[in-house]
Amino acid sequence: MPSDSADDPRLGDVSEGTVLRAILARTPRAAAAIIGPGDDAAVIAAASGTVVATTDTLVHGPDFRLAWSSGYDLGWKSAAVNLADIAAMGARPTALLVALAVPRDMRVSFVEQLADGLRAACEALAPGCAVVGGDLTVSDVLTVAVTALGDLEGRDAVTRGGARVGDVVAVAGELGHAARGLAVLFGKFRDQGTPIAVVTSQLAAGERSALDAQLRPAPPIGLGVMASVAGATAMMDISDGLALDARRLAAASDVTLDLVRSALGEDALLALAGGEDHALLATFPPGVLPPGFRIIGSVRERVDEGVLCDGEPVDVSGWDPYRDWDSTTG
Amino acid sequence: MPSDSADDPRLGDVSEGTVLRAILARTPRAAAAIIGPGDDAAVIAAASGTVVATTDTLVHGPDFRLAWSSGYDLGWKSAAVNLADIAAMGARPTALLVALAVPRDMRVSFVEQLADGLRAACEALAPGCAVVGGDLTVSDVLTVAVTALGDLEGRDAVTRGGARVGDVVAVAGELGHAARGLAVLFGKFRDQGTPIAVVTSQLAAGERSALDAQLRPAPPIGLGVMASVAGATAMMDISDGLALDARRLAAASDVTLDLVRSALGEDALLALAGGEDHALLATFPPGVLPPGFRIIGSVRERVDEGVLCDGEPVDVSGWDPYRDWDSTTG
Repeated sequence: MPSDSADDPRLGDVSEGTVLRAILARTPRAAAAIIGPGDDAAVIAAASGTVVATTDTLVHGPDFRLAWSSGYDLGWKSAAVNLADIAAMGARPTALLVALAVPRDMRVSFVEQLADGLRAACEALAPGCAVVGGDLTVSDVLTVAVTALGDLEGRDAVTRGGARVGDVVAVAGELGHAARGLAVLFGKFRDQGTPIAVVTSQLAAGERSALDAQLRPAPPIGLGVMASVAGATAMMDISDGLALDARRLAAASDVTLDLVRSALGEDALLALAGGEDHALLATFPPGVLPPGFRIIGSVRERVDEGVLCDGEPVDVSGWDPYRDWDSTTG
Repeated sequence: MPSDSADDPRLGDVSEGTVLRAILARTPRAAAAIIGPGDDAAVIAAASGTVVATTDTLVHGPDFRLAWSSGYDLGWKSAAVNLADIAAMGARPTALLVALAVPRDMRVSFVEQLADGLRAACEALAPGCAVVGGDLTVSDVLTVAVTALGDLEGRDAVTRGGARVGDVVAVAGELGHAARGLAVLFGKFRDQGTPIAVVTSQLAAGERSALDAQLRPAPPIGLGVMASVAGATAMMDISDGLALDARRLAAASDVTLDLVRSALGEDALLALAGGEDHALLATFPPGVLPPGFRIIGSVRERVDEGVLCDGEPVDVSGWDPYRDWDSTTG
């Protein structure tokens, strides 16, 4: 990051147009964009006659800390969490719209890095998808609201409501990895004055990979389409932890999911409670399992509890790591 | 608004699910929604094979003040400004996604009123359009980021870049009305302790109507499609004032717009400089003028200035009424 302020003005000292041009210069054209950024609205191809749409916001404090996340990290994560919602419908992401609210005293380079992170996440996780529009405003609280659009390519959407008794329960992607990364941040970097890039070099490899999963999650976006093609009966992404999100899928489908503890990895509790991995949770008819998914349980007739683990109730609540966050103490 | 806090809890004291259910209960189904709110993403019909998309954010302080805007006003305005961008492409709005970031100490009833305002604006300005998805998070700064989607119904989009020499320049909707309303607010309500609803009863009719235009703008959304069908060559909505936005259209089309001062109403300067009316600015081939539009000038070959008024340069800059807003003084 440039340290010379003359080369890197604060947002409050330049026009909105200057900042938007700097961002657009870093924004590739979306493959599906018929009209890209720069007009009143973008026009995106939706050849199959429907469009999938979702929105998810990251707010400084409740959702991230600038002491821990770079602009690049923030751009990456804000793309990834939205791409996962599109994938969870069995759709291919086509375009992002990004509404940025940024404090006046932030550097233009921070916003450029954020644009780079958005671009890199799209290129890595959903090739062809890119930013097609946005909005920039000032705010005392850094806020990134992303809307993602996707194309079902003629398939029906895979909702949360289609799981059937006898289906297998499967996941693609990590469970509890991002939560482990957050524990590393809270444990080793709380009130840390040293730049995080310097200190991460002292972490063990496993800790570093968990940190990456927290700051730059890489959910298996392409497997959403694969799951749909293979015949997934229900699907969602796991943002608030397996236990809570599986309960939501079970409720929508009016079934109970019986998970197998030994299939949840070394730390089953972390896998059940830890959020923010954005792994895909899906149910498939018996005998069907596309590459990339692993079986973690089975679908039973509905009982009182929506989720069981080895036949027993699961005593894990949802994911809200910043619940006690206070803006006055940071 | 209920004054009994037991009947109207603060957002920090209830679950996200409780608030979302309260909002969804007030949200009608969009005509084009195949899958509405409640899953990972919504699915919206885009029968003609493309989708139009735009995003625009209102931030407390730079864009509105809670001393002046009710939750209903804020919901209405956040819908209207986005609907206008869809209309400006010649499209019919089909769906909104709403990302809300709300302080913990706000009442649930405020968010319910905001949902009512979103609904009312859609019903009044773009029947059939409704909220299909959203996101709710906490933030110290109230922020409403809306994404609007629209359908071109098989027509080409009307961009800013198609104006041709010899076209007429026309507008539909008010010019300077919202700015006059803001002047009323700054002039009569600055640091006003009295609730604004009480004090507005003392305003003259013209002032009250200008205030409504500022707090709950009603741009002519349906005329966007009409303009496109009639053969508009270029179009945009006027959010930052006629002078600045006309300059943008002129630059995109590589022409100069020569406006006629006498066509701009009693206060031409206010019409040129005042933003936030979201009137539609369009160019049409000579002899073409759909109902609802009025001619305000003509398109000339490009000269140094993108906008002239009676052949003379226009010395009006853009619209940024809260430029000197300071969060510490409100």
